[in-house]
Amino acid sequence: MTTTQIKNVNLATMTGAKNDTLAIQENTELWLQGSKILGIGPQQHQDFVHTDTVDAQGMWCLPGFIDCHTHLVYGGSRAGEFQQRLSGVSYQQINEQGGGIKSTVAATRVLDEQALLDAAIRRTARLTEEGVTTVEIKSGYGLDKDTETRMLTVAARVPDHLPVNVQRTYLGAHALPVEYQGNSDGYIDYVCQTMMPYIAQHKLASAVDVFCESVGFSLTQTRRVFEAAQRYNLQVKIHAEQLSDSKGARLAAEFQALSVDHIEYLHEEDISAIADAGSVAVLLPGAFYFLKETKLPPVEALRSHQVPMAIATDMNPGTSPVSSILICANMACIQFGLTIEEALRGITVNAARALALPLKGQLAAGYDADLCLWDIDSPADLIYEINGFRPSAKWLGGKRVL
Amino acid sequence: MTTTQIKNVNLATMTGAKNDTLAIQENTELWLQGSKILGIGPQQHQDFVHTDTVDAQGMWCLPGFIDCHTHLVYGGSRAGEFQQRLSGVSYQQINEQGGGIKSTVAATRVLDEQALLDAAIRRTARLTEEGVTTVEIKSGYGLDKDTETRMLTVAARVPDHLPVNVQRTYLGAHALPVEYQGNSDGYIDYVCQTMMPYIAQHKLASAVDVFCESVGFSLTQTRRVFEAAQRYNLQVKIHAEQLSDSKGARLAAEFQALSVDHIEYLHEEDISAIADAGSVAVLLPGAFYFLKETKLPPVEALRSHQVPMAIATDMNPGTSPVSSILICANMACIQFGLTIEEALRGITVNAARALALPLKGQLAAGYDADLCLWDIDSPADLIYEINGFRPSAKWLGGKRVL
Ligand SMILES: [Zn+2]
Ligand SMILES: [Zn+2]
Repeated sequence: MTTTQIKNVNLATMTGAKNDTLAIQENTELWLQGSKILGIGPQQHQDFVHTDTVDAQGMWCLPGFIDCHTHLVYGGSRAGEFQQRLSGVSYQQINEQGGGIKSTVAATRVLDEQALLDAAIRRTARLTEEGVTTVEIKSGYGLDKDTETRMLTVAARVPDHLPVNVQRTYLGAHALPVEYQGNSDGYIDYVCQTMMPYIAQHKLASAVDVFCESVGFSLTQTRRVFEAAQRYNLQVKIHAEQLSDSKGARLAAEFQALSVDHIEYLHEEDISAIADAGSVAVLLPGAFYFLKETKLPPVEALRSHQVPMAIATDMNPGTSPVSSILICANMACIQFGLTIEEALRGITVNAARALALPLKGQLAAGYDADLCLWDIDSPADLIYEINGFRPSAKWLGGKRVL
Repeated sequence: MTTTQIKNVNLATMTGAKNDTLAIQENTELWLQGSKILGIGPQQHQDFVHTDTVDAQGMWCLPGFIDCHTHLVYGGSRAGEFQQRLSGVSYQQINEQGGGIKSTVAATRVLDEQALLDAAIRRTARLTEEGVTTVEIKSGYGLDKDTETRMLTVAARVPDHLPVNVQRTYLGAHALPVEYQGNSDGYIDYVCQTMMPYIAQHKLASAVDVFCESVGFSLTQTRRVFEAAQRYNLQVKIHAEQLSDSKGARLAAEFQALSVDHIEYLHEEDISAIADAGSVAVLLPGAFYFLKETKLPPVEALRSHQVPMAIATDMNPGTSPVSSILICANMACIQFGLTIEEALRGITVNAARALALPLKGQLAAGYDADLCLWDIDSPADLIYEINGFRPSAKWLGGKRVL
C-alpha cells in the first residue's frame, strides 16, 4: 500500500458544518494511504513501506468536484430545437410538438452501446478535465427495458475510460414513451412492477428519480414510484418545482429524498419539511440560464432553514447542454446570489451528500482520496473566472491520475 | 512548399455576404498550400511537389475562431471584488473605492515580463484549446510607458508558446493613473504626445482604443486620442455605450473606427453613421452577464442597417473573466437573441473585419489557412452546447498544429 505525502500545500477541506466556511488549512501537508486520506499535518513515518512525496509549492488542494445531477448518456443533438427557442418557441410548446425529451428518446433508442459510450465519454471528459472526480448519471432516454439498461450499462463503463466515479440513477419516470401514449398510469405500473425489480436485482442504479411536473408525471404517480423504490431499497430523488409549484419536493421529503432538484418555484412553507428530511437542495443554474427563467430559487429561505445546497450541471441535450461544473457554480453565484463559499461547498461536500457518498467531498482522515491540486491564488479564483483553470495534479481513490 | 488535401470534409466557409448564412459546402475537399488556402474541391495535382492527404471522415471544417477584444495580459485577481459585487456593490462604486481597473493597474505594474507572460499564456491556452487561432490583446493596465510597453511585448511573445496569431491594441486611455489624479487632460496629452509616437515608432500596436464612459474618458478627450491616432496611422476602436449613451460610437464612426464595442446603450439614430463608416459592432455578452446588465444592445437595428456583428470575450479581470469564445457566442444567442449563424459569423468573418484582417475568418482560395476540424453533426452544435467540444485537428498558417 503506497503512502503519499503532499507537502507545502494549502487545503480547502470543506469539513466545516456551516455554509459560509471552506475550513481552510494553509501551508500544511496532506497524507494519502491506499485509497484514503491518512491525515493532515505531519504523520508518523516509521511503518510506511513506501512513501512518495509531492511538493505542491504553495498550490491549493480541494476535494475533487462532484456533479450530482446529469443526463449525459444520450443520442442525437437538439441544436435545431435550440434555434427554435431562440426565436421564441417555449420548452412546453416544443414538447407538445413531439420535440423535447421525446426526440432524444427516439435518437437514443437507435444507438448501440458503443455509440452511446463514445458520446458519454466525450461529455464526461469535459467534466473530468476541470476537476470532477464523481458524476451522477441518470437513465431516462430509453423508457423501455433494453434502452434503459443500455444507458445504465454505458454509465458504468465510463470509468473504464476516464478517471471518474459514477453513481447511477434510474429515471424511468422522465417522460411518457410513445407506446404508452394516453396511458401514463399504465407506464407507471411498468416502471414500478417491471423495471424497478429488474433495476434492483441487477444493481443497475442506487437511486430512483421522477420528473414531477405538469409536462412530466403527477404527484400521485410520483408517490407510486417512490413507494416502489422503498420496497426495493432504492433511494429517491426528484425533479420538482422547475416550472411550477407542484409540491413534488414536499412529497419527496416524506420519503427522505436524497435531494430535491431545480426547485425554483418551491414555496417557503415547504422548506422546513425538506430540512427535517435531511434532503439536499440541488440548484441547476444551467437550465435556468438556457430556458431564460426568471423565477429564482428560494435561496434565502434555504439558508435560514439550513438546507444544504448543491449545484450540478443537469447536463442534458434539451435544457442544459452544459459540460462544466465550474461554469454552473459561477452561474449559481451570478444568477442565484450564492456566495463563493456556498458555490464551492455545492460542488463538493453538499453534492456528496446528495448522492449518499459520505466519504467524498471533504479532505479529512478516513475520507476517499479524490482530490486535485490547483495553481491559484485562492479557491475563489475557480468560481470567479469562467474556463480559467485546469487541475495541475489529480488523485482518484488515492491513485495519481494526472 | 507543402500542399495538404483535406478530403471528405464539410465546410462552413463563412464567405456569404449576408448575416444569416454560413455558406456551407458539404462533402467536398479543401486544399492548403504554404500558408494559404489553395482552393475548394478537386485541384490540379501535377505541379505539387509533396502532398499530404488528411481524411476528415465527414467532420466539419470551420475557420479558426477570432477573439477580437481581450485584455488578457494583466496581474492579480479580482475575486474579492467579485464577492463584493455578489453582495450588491456596483461596478461604479468599486471603481470609486480604488478597486476596479486601478487595482489591476497596481498589480500589473509590479509584475515582470515573465510573470505577465505566464499568466497570459494560461488564459490564451484556454482560448486556443477550443479553436481560437487569432486573438486581439489590448494594453491598458500599465498606463505608464514601461508597463504598457511590457504588456504589448508580452502579447507579442504569446505566439512563441501557443499556436495563435496576436493583434495588439494600445489602450492607454483605459483609466486615469494615480500619478495624473485630477489631471485627466494632462494624461491625455501624455497618451497623444509621448506614448502614441512611441507605440507607432516601435510598432507595438496596430490600433488605438479608448474607454469612453462616465467612469472613463470624455467625448472630447476621445476625439483628441483619435486625432493623434490618425496622425500616426494607427486604426481606432472604442469601448462605448456600455453603461450609458455617451455618443462615443458615433464619434468613432467619424474616424472610420474598425469597431465600436459593447454598445448596449447605443441609440438607433446613431447606427446609420456606424453602418456608413463600415465599423463592426462588437458585442461583449460576458461583461453583460457578469455585471447583470439588463439593457440589451440594439440587435434588430444593427441587422436592419446591415452592421456586421462580432462577438468577443472581453477577457478581463473585472467585468468579464471569461476565457471561452464559444461560451460568449452562446451567451450572445441566449442573452441578446442572436441566431446561431450570426454567432458563428461573429467569431469568424466579422471578428476578422473588426481587426482589419481581411484574409482571415473565411474558407476560400487565397485566404490564410487558419482552420479547425470538428467532430460534430452540424456547426450549430458548437454554439448550442457549452464546453462540449474541442477541435480534432488544427492548422495555423497552413501548418498542422494539432
Ligand atoms: Zn435533470
Ligand atoms: Zn474591453
